[in-house]
Amino acid sequence: MTAFAQADTAPRPVLTAFDWVPDFARGVVRDLRIRWAFEEIGRPYATELFSARDPRPESYLAWQPFDQVPAFAEGDLRFFETGAILLYLGEQAERLLPTEPQARWTAIAWLFSALNSVEPYLGRIATYDLFHKDEAWMPPAREAALGLCRQKLKRVSDALADRDWLAGPFSIADIAMVTVLNTLRHTAIVAEYPKLAAYKQRGEERPAYRRALAAQLADFEDQPSQAA
Amino acid sequence: MTAFAQADTAPRPVLTAFDWVPDFARGVVRDLRIRWAFEEIGRPYATELFSARDPRPESYLAWQPFDQVPAFAEGDLRFFETGAILLYLGEQAERLLPTEPQARWTAIAWLFSALNSVEPYLGRIATYDLFHKDEAWMPPAREAALGLCRQKLKRVSDALADRDWLAGPFSIADIAMVTVLNTLRHTAIVAEYPKLAAYKQRGEERPAYRRALAAQLADFEDQPSQAA
Repeated sequence: MTAFAQADTAPRPVLTAFDWVPDFARGVVRDLRIRWAFEEIGRPYATELFSARDPRPESYLAWQPFDQVPAFAEGDLRFFETGAILLYLGEQAERLLPTEPQARWTAIAWLFSALNSVEPYLGRIATYDLFHKDEAWMPPAREAALGLCRQKLKRVSDALADRDWLAGPFSIADIAMVTVLNTLRHTAIVAEYPKLAAYKQRGEERPAYRRALAAQLADFEDQPSQAA
Repeated sequence: MTAFAQADTAPRPVLTAFDWVPDFARGVVRDLRIRWAFEEIGRPYATELFSARDPRPESYLAWQPFDQVPAFAEGDLRFFETGAILLYLGEQAERLLPTEPQARWTAIAWLFSALNSVEPYLGRIATYDLFHKDEAWMPPAREAALGLCRQKLKRVSDALADRDWLAGPFSIADIAMVTVLNTLRHTAIVAEYPKLAAYKQRGEERPAYRRALAAQLADFEDQPSQAA
């Protein structure tokens, strides 16, 4: 249940995650975004695991009203929503969110963009591909949605230009955007934008991302490493 | 261009908005959300207007990379994204965002929810209805999207329960959620959830909402009041 092997006695913040999800969701469940932030600042955390196969206890809705993961707790403070948790951690660590006002608000703007101006349009494509692929109406519906999806990707690519990260230094905006881009990992759409594809790869090559991904995958109960 | 008639000399924050949009967008363009926040705290602002019919100047992309409204400026600080601007104003006014940690993070969680866990699913329905209504594939695609849309509305309704506002006192979370619910104003879907419909009405009856809506509509160049 804990993400770091070394002993420590300070109370750890708690993150909810799943101990089983279907294959298509592995590596993209949203607790990954929070794990990544924790790994960037080397902060231990604990997980509280639920199965995506079984209903969560009714009481979980008071913590996460949409019955999803992640939810977050630190001490008596409990709240939900990936974007909010990223912002909370960013406020605790300048390595995740600059404190200089223009840099801070640029990063926060891109955090919201990833979640509101980009993810919804990529999510439509993923929904069609993953949940409706055999429906006769799907191909024309998908084709109609591709235009806005590509427009959003082009806007992000143009804004990124030749910078490594969206808001100057690496920030919570990049954690959100890189993982949002991964919504389309089953397609070659992001590859149409070479700067964006390179940006995504740059994010996913960070050691903290790799540790976070390994931690998410290791928490699935039927991992090969645990099934021997 | 200014929202308050009385003379004042302090520099006003600037918001971008449109001076023309098609009828279906009037009253739901997102600068409304920021105007509403300003009106709640009685703070004067200035608008910089563009037409949705004409391309914005290329230089606008450096301020608003998605070529949308609103973008925001105060002094030398410039950024974009409705959620970020609401949060910025919330940090300046406890009437928009409580400072006590649990209340603050609950409100921020609901702000992100409105924009990432709710709006995308309502937006799908609106896209079908407003942009694809004559396509043969649309009715089954819309039907498939209605399930998730209703599920999200039910979750918000259940979480709201008998409270007036999402996070205790009225906050930026309610500005986001009430206006997100209005995405479906051309349908009767929200009315299926009486608590949610009452919540939306409660928001839209606030004098600050009414002033904000009047200000958005008054900025359209072909308003009847200006066409005489």
